[in-house]
Amino acid sequence: MTFPSIAILGPGLLGGSLALAVRERVSGAQIRVWARRQDRLEAVRCLGIADEVSTDAAEIAAGASLIIFCMPIGAMEAVGLQIADAVGPGTIVTDVGSVKQPVVRTLGKIFGPRFIGSHPMAGSEQAGIEAARADLFQGAVTILTPEEGTPAESVRALAAFWEALGCRVAMMTPHAHDEAVALISHLPHLAAAALIQAALRENPAALDLHGNGFFDTTRVASGPPDMWAEILVQNRDAVKKAVHAMIENLSEVSKLLDTQETGEIEEYLAEARRTRNRLRQPAQKTIS
Amino acid sequence: MTFPSIAILGPGLLGGSLALAVRERVSGAQIRVWARRQDRLEAVRCLGIADEVSTDAAEIAAGASLIIFCMPIGAMEAVGLQIADAVGPGTIVTDVGSVKQPVVRTLGKIFGPRFIGSHPMAGSEQAGIEAARADLFQGAVTILTPEEGTPAESVRALAAFWEALGCRVAMMTPHAHDEAVALISHLPHLAAAALIQAALRENPAALDLHGNGFFDTTRVASGPPDMWAEILVQNRDAVKKAVHAMIENLSEVSKLLDTQETGEIEEYLAEARRTRNRLRQPAQKTIS
Repeated sequence: MTFPSIAILGPGLLGGSLALAVRERVSGAQIRVWARRQDRLEAVRCLGIADEVSTDAAEIAAGASLIIFCMPIGAMEAVGLQIADAVGPGTIVTDVGSVKQPVVRTLGKIFGPRFIGSHPMAGSEQAGIEAARADLFQGAVTILTPEEGTPAESVRALAAFWEALGCRVAMMTPHAHDEAVALISHLPHLAAAALIQAALRENPAALDLHGNGFFDTTRVASGPPDMWAEILVQNRDAVKKAVHAMIENLSEVSKLLDTQETGEIEEYLAEARRTRNRLRQPAQKTIS
Repeated sequence: MTFPSIAILGPGLLGGSLALAVRERVSGAQIRVWARRQDRLEAVRCLGIADEVSTDAAEIAAGASLIIFCMPIGAMEAVGLQIADAVGPGTIVTDVGSVKQPVVRTLGKIFGPRFIGSHPMAGSEQAGIEAARADLFQGAVTILTPEEGTPAESVRALAAFWEALGCRVAMMTPHAHDEAVALISHLPHLAAAALIQAALRENPAALDLHGNGFFDTTRVASGPPDMWAEILVQNRDAVKKAVHAMIENLSEVSKLLDTQETGEIEEYLAEARRTRNRLRQPAQKTIS
């Protein structure tokens, strides 16, 4: 099962990069792009990455064998309802949202077993099609969240699609996904923002002295605030749990500093270092 | 006032990079290197970055016009006492330590107004002379912490030295330095370690799914645990204050998530983003 015609709904950083990656790596696939605004479609046309573009979502969805929602989570339901009647029975529908439980609920209700959630762990602090890159997914993990009623053949086909773009595919439940990414994506974003806010509030002049470490540690805080606010609120419970774990760790370290000994704090840092050094380095280059 | 002979005490990442940078940018300066261990001096010899090497610190210090302590803070006093009698009256003594109050106390007592603290905000998560680079200081801020009795001419000469290596120089008191770097260097290090520990303790499998964001946000946690434990303990009061500010910020964000509205959390992230986007990008490339 391959996808002769792929509809990308929303050509931002992820949607645009998807179009570029499909063009480069999936031979023969027709690329259809929907955007709400005509000027976004002009950008798509300029980049020459689509065979068909329209501001009519149903028109783009009709006849597509794979439909990928690449828009903010809050916008998905309305667009899903717009295209519901145009989507064929054999079509697979997926998305690239950073939170899976609300998306699976919403789009699962509209598309039934045709919908499978995807989350490519790829992106950058930049936004918009201008930042799109064909290699954005190269070496990234893409998490799929099939449910009990999802046909195995559809899961295999969708996994093969992401693999063709250079991803490693992992499978888990929407709930397990949301818990995991709260710790490795949503919390790091909040921590980066909180590091900047802490300096800004306590000692703004200190920011002028920063070195590489602060610059890299806070890079993700340059991401779009509206998108991130939505992600954090949509994944509220897991994010709050992750924030709590972070606060507990910081409190523990603060207590270790009181003991005057370096032994325990060194062991805490050493364990973090061993773990960090075991992390796979993403193949793609960082934009910063 | 220039420095015809520069003694570097301790050829690790910073000392080795200093030797390389001086060789490249300060014409005619003799470079003298002390290391505690002979095998470290072999590495210095292999790199061809010193005119004179010895495991006898007094021998290296004798006749030097600028002496730079590039060793862990806890090792400075003993080495300072070893070389005290060999240091001439017109010599300037400085260091590259990440905390300034304890160093200024210790080395100030030994060298009097000949000592001026320096802290180049440059480094990487790597350690040792093998990671040394001539351009490590390029574009970095170096903070000097002269005291009331420090001769203005010495301060100007030391500032000119760092500027010759490509640094921007800032001046402040040791106390102001320690408060500022607690927020922009020591806290980010702890936050990176705590992010890793939070994931490790709550959901270690999540670490396998990480993307670029987590990788970059935690890069500094790969730094040497012994060195960082010492820095954190030496700057305990300011670090605890910074950790407290971070915890307050995270608690505030956690409360904002309860309100179900994205408006306030978006404004929090937007302010962090505006501030992050105003940060000067370090000229040097990140090793990661």
